[in-house]
Amino acid sequence: MKRLLLVTLLISCAASIAAAQQSARTAIEANAKQFTEAFNKGDASAVANMYTMDARVLPPNGEIVEGRPNIQKFWQGAMTAGVKMVSLETVHVETEGNVAVEIGRYTSTMPGAGGTTTTDKGKYVVVWKREGERWKLAVDIFNTSIPTASATP
Amino acid sequence: MKRLLLVTLLISCAASIAAAQQSARTAIEANAKQFTEAFNKGDASAVANMYTMDARVLPPNGEIVEGRPNIQKFWQGAMTAGVKMVSLETVHVETEGNVAVEIGRYTSTMPGAGGTTTTDKGKYVVVWKREGERWKLAVDIFNTSIPTASATP
Repeated sequence: MKRLLLVTLLISCAASIAAAQQSARTAIEANAKQFTEAFNKGDASAVANMYTMDARVLPPNGEIVEGRPNIQKFWQGAMTAGVKMVSLETVHVETEGNVAVEIGRYTSTMPGAGGTTTTDKGKYVVVWKREGERWKLAVDIFNTSIPTASATP
Repeated sequence: MKRLLLVTLLISCAASIAAAQQSARTAIEANAKQFTEAFNKGDASAVANMYTMDARVLPPNGEIVEGRPNIQKFWQGAMTAGVKMVSLETVHVETEGNVAVEIGRYTSTMPGAGGTTTTDKGKYVVVWKREGERWKLAVDIFNTSIPTASATP
């Protein structure tokens, strides 16, 4: 009887893990869409609210940005500079308990010199944390995939 | 009796989580030291063996590097280019089950033009996975903290 209970528990546990992986990916893909929309509307507050209160953003060419208010300022700065998010594409998601690790690719644009538009393509890692029914960004780091211009000798 | 068992289980569970967080951080700090030493000896194979078989490295200015053999080639390239790891400093570690998320800072050097040495300071996120007694790098992404040189108008 005890063995049967254990087997039942193990099976239901494995099934829950598979379901959790799937539902985390679905939720995260929906969040990526929500992030892009809020970003392109210039709503830094809505973007910041997608992060945990003590989240950290690690942007290239800058220091670690810690906490939701600073994250809001950071993204506000990018919006003011004219950055637009073209796409966030989830490549891989792995879940462990209330944490999910997402690897993805981004495409963004910003105004370049002389009225041109510069496109950036890169990749990111986001560590998501489940808070109740919501998955929130807890760690967000990204970098460009565009090769460095060769140094002038 | 059942309630007592449950309480005992919960207490031992909380104690194990705290112990796991601590032991993960200790193991990860030791790994950072080991990584630095292997890197500076030019031992790309030893560095690659610290990663899981299907790990991913997301370097700036390049594509996602997937799998231990490609990771070995990637780090071998950096070693051949003369990159030296000055320090890897663990800033924050959070553990969830067999996964640990580390935020850290790095300092590295590489040969610059005319016999000079260029120093890079940046930050990284590593997602570690426990494999038996060892913590292995499963995801490794980093970027510089040095501001971009202002574009020439």
